[in-house]
Amino acid sequence: MEKRALLYEGKAKRVYMTDDENLVWIQYKDSATAFNGEKKAEITGKGRLNNEITSLLFSKLHEAGVASHFVERLSETEQLVKKVNIIPLETVVRNVAAGSFSKRLGIEEGKPLSKPLVEFYLKNDDLGDPIMTDDQIFELGLANEKEVALLKEKALKVNSILSSFFAELGINLIDFKLEFGKDAAGEVLLADEISPDTCRLWDKETNAKLDKDVFRRDLGNLTDAYENILERLGGPQHV
Amino acid sequence: MEKRALLYEGKAKRVYMTDDENLVWIQYKDSATAFNGEKKAEITGKGRLNNEITSLLFSKLHEAGVASHFVERLSETEQLVKKVNIIPLETVVRNVAAGSFSKRLGIEEGKPLSKPLVEFYLKNDDLGDPIMTDDQIFELGLANEKEVALLKEKALKVNSILSSFFAELGINLIDFKLEFGKDAAGEVLLADEISPDTCRLWDKETNAKLDKDVFRRDLGNLTDAYENILERLGGPQHV
Repeated sequence: MEKRALLYEGKAKRVYMTDDENLVWIQYKDSATAFNGEKKAEITGKGRLNNEITSLLFSKLHEAGVASHFVERLSETEQLVKKVNIIPLETVVRNVAAGSFSKRLGIEEGKPLSKPLVEFYLKNDDLGDPIMTDDQIFELGLANEKEVALLKEKALKVNSILSSFFAELGINLIDFKLEFGKDAAGEVLLADEISPDTCRLWDKETNAKLDKDVFRRDLGNLTDAYENILERLGGPQHV
Repeated sequence: MEKRALLYEGKAKRVYMTDDENLVWIQYKDSATAFNGEKKAEITGKGRLNNEITSLLFSKLHEAGVASHFVERLSETEQLVKKVNIIPLETVVRNVAAGSFSKRLGIEEGKPLSKPLVEFYLKNDDLGDPIMTDDQIFELGLANEKEVALLKEKALKVNSILSSFFAELGINLIDFKLEFGKDAAGEVLLADEISPDTCRLWDKETNAKLDKDVFRRDLGNLTDAYENILERLGGPQHV
């Protein structure tokens, strides 16, 4: 597999073409951003940690029957994935009230929800990723009724698998954000990443935050928290 | 009917008890507020105009089979209504993109929607009335699945009646906000007010705004705009 031209550079990743038009080469960056890019830092090791954790979690999900864009880990900071057209919605699953959900609706952070809640946010930095109702999604033509139902179903399945998996490792999966894309054949695949950048992960015993809130809220050393997660997951796949 | 103690004072209305425990006496105030109370003014005549317009519109809806809390107009600025427990959701119906919908989702103001869109907002000034998804409403216990479906159905019926009615008067009903409450018997009734404070009303020919946006956006004289609406509706019921 050959890495070719840079296709796209986002806040956390670079995406390169390859010699296969259906595959792209992802390089995880050390950049940390929060609050829609208002808070920024370079954190050595963050790219490696998120690449390793994402590779492990996509492999875990694959074993459990959840199709994703993930093909293989290429290096400490790189992975090969299927090229997809990202659906411009961030799909969020919440098990426990936290973050923007708590703040917007006045619910105490840490309050368990009666059942997992799926939300959709418009993927648009200029607009600050506003939350959307299903009817707004249909009106804007971002997804149809069948697709929204499919995204919810897939998101809840991922939640069920990952919640159990993290629970075994002594971690509460509080909430997380997923992105989905369509491959060349039109199949909806889980895409982007699943890492402490996109999940809230709290230690079951201490409620210590082992995710990007460490950076957002200045709670300590981010790489220590992410290393903790990677270690509990069994460390990097390849040494 | 006797007016008794003040029960509640809101931004635009005072609510008094009466000698009938199932009825309350509403007095419309001349206060204008916008942007969650950040912009304020006293506008002589506004209370009268909103009381007259609301009385006319609730009567119109009653004729068309929509039950509401409205009992009768008492004076230029007062009306008698059934006492209800307000469901803490603002139900918004949109026919054309405008206001916060345009701004939040990046849709040009004035773009007609493919079909009427119903949205729910948490009625909570401290939180800035955040938009809510159906699942969030269920999770917070604000209304159950059956009630949300009922609110949507009622809101769309009101939209259908009022859109036709305003169209006959040369006015485009762009969007509006409704509130609903439960009476002593648990019946869900349309409540609050329907006026240029709670509707966007654009002249069909000129697109001139004949609603609270005149105040929000400093577009001219608010009472002239509201008088225009009242005149087209046939003027006050009682002179």
